[in-house]
Amino acid sequence: MSQHLGADGAAPVFADAAEARRAIRAGRFRGHTSGLVPAHAQGNLMILPRAMAEDFHRFCQQNPKPCPILGVSQPGARTLPTLGTDLDLATDVSDYRVYEGGELVAELPDLTGVWRDDFVTFVLGCSFSFEAGLIAAGIPLRHVALGRNVAMYRTSITTRPSGPFHGPLVVSMRPMKAADAIKAVQVTARMPAVHGAPIHLGDPSLIGIRDIARPDFGDPVPIEPDELPVFWACGVTPQAVAMAARLPLCITHAPGHMLITDLLNRDLPFL
Amino acid sequence: MSQHLGADGAAPVFADAAEARRAIRAGRFRGHTSGLVPAHAQGNLMILPRAMAEDFHRFCQQNPKPCPILGVSQPGARTLPTLGTDLDLATDVSDYRVYEGGELVAELPDLTGVWRDDFVTFVLGCSFSFEAGLIAAGIPLRHVALGRNVAMYRTSITTRPSGPFHGPLVVSMRPMKAADAIKAVQVTARMPAVHGAPIHLGDPSLIGIRDIARPDFGDPVPIEPDELPVFWACGVTPQAVAMAARLPLCITHAPGHMLITDLLNRDLPFL
Repeated sequence: MSQHLGADGAAPVFADAAEARRAIRAGRFRGHTSGLVPAHAQGNLMILPRAMAEDFHRFCQQNPKPCPILGVSQPGARTLPTLGTDLDLATDVSDYRVYEGGELVAELPDLTGVWRDDFVTFVLGCSFSFEAGLIAAGIPLRHVALGRNVAMYRTSITTRPSGPFHGPLVVSMRPMKAADAIKAVQVTARMPAVHGAPIHLGDPSLIGIRDIARPDFGDPVPIEPDELPVFWACGVTPQAVAMAARLPLCITHAPGHMLITDLLNRDLPFL
Repeated sequence: MSQHLGADGAAPVFADAAEARRAIRAGRFRGHTSGLVPAHAQGNLMILPRAMAEDFHRFCQQNPKPCPILGVSQPGARTLPTLGTDLDLATDVSDYRVYEGGELVAELPDLTGVWRDDFVTFVLGCSFSFEAGLIAAGIPLRHVALGRNVAMYRTSITTRPSGPFHGPLVVSMRPMKAADAIKAVQVTARMPAVHGAPIHLGDPSLIGIRDIARPDFGDPVPIEPDELPVFWACGVTPQAVAMAARLPLCITHAPGHMLITDLLNRDLPFL
């Protein structure tokens, strides 16, 4: 897959975030970014024409738990210096998805050919960062152990609308023993830039989840009898909301193909 | 009851902690101290002969969640300057309980007549302080609303033993909606000096509580269907452990009759 692949076929090892971005930019790495350059924060991407950007910016400001803003570009700019030097928003994600009227119309490894000088790029915090914090705190994550995607659900909690952007909060779920759930609240509360503290724990029906075994996105993850499901606001929320808004145009990353930033996860509590 | 009682019979109002201690010392106030001088931290009291104090000190150090030490006196000293000026450990609690061999042998409003120059006094943090933090954070406390004592339970969790001191962890329980439980973890985690974060939430049987409707101490408090029981390590633990140790002599405060300190609850996160 890549010259960066280890001899055993394991995930590639990059010296730093900029080297990982250059490998993606050059087409040498096209995989999922989970676990890649693990000290660094990765971001969800939302690229919108300027005409829709103001409403979306306000949507994020009003819904900081699902939409924690790590950075917003100048209109037309492919750079975002606060998130990285040698960073190109049009090339440094390995898989972009282009939507028109809420429908997927193209999947591209590079936006150079379609870039417009009115594009505004939003980079939103991603749960990979707080999962690194949870693992560092000794809290096991079952979906990671099982090699699955995290389980995600639409809830009965509504986001605060802004212009065309409105819809239900989407949450991710991680099963934990109560003592770990209590630790997890403390760990993630210190990272508001990447979804912050959970929004719910315990009975899923209280937030409108009818069947915990059937997630709306991602993979099912079993919950043991001595565990509670713990729910965090999820970065899929703004994507779902943008799709539902049937915008003339919006571009996102494909799931798991995130923007790798120069930000260190260890600095997130202090942003 | 007291010249400090308001005209409507409501709780007395003291200008500060020292004035409250002087009223207790003079016998002008003999009631429960809950809600008295609410900005100030109150403490659980444990007075032991020096021969047993070292083991107890180590017990507290090993079990900081049930036994958070606010102060330890010099042997024989009736003062504890770090917790208050004009503070007399032998007179400033309105109701002392004297135990011999684990049995209650006397209840005294004043220890002057029985004071010994080998007494070491431990003042331990009390949940009144973190309840003030929870209320300030807008989290309703049902036992307060119902005018009941908090519900407390022996658990299957054992404390780390030290000398004669050993036994089960005792917890207090407050029912909360999940979102409030998540906030409560954050609020109380910042106050390790008064029991800190919860030790459990959800299924009581996982910590050995068979019937949540029948507390071992305090009053039963109902849990609504959309609530979780949230459990904190409780200052009754060291008292229960000291009783079980059948020490030749130990002296505590009577439940609810705490030592009022000069410490401000708002400073507890920064101790």
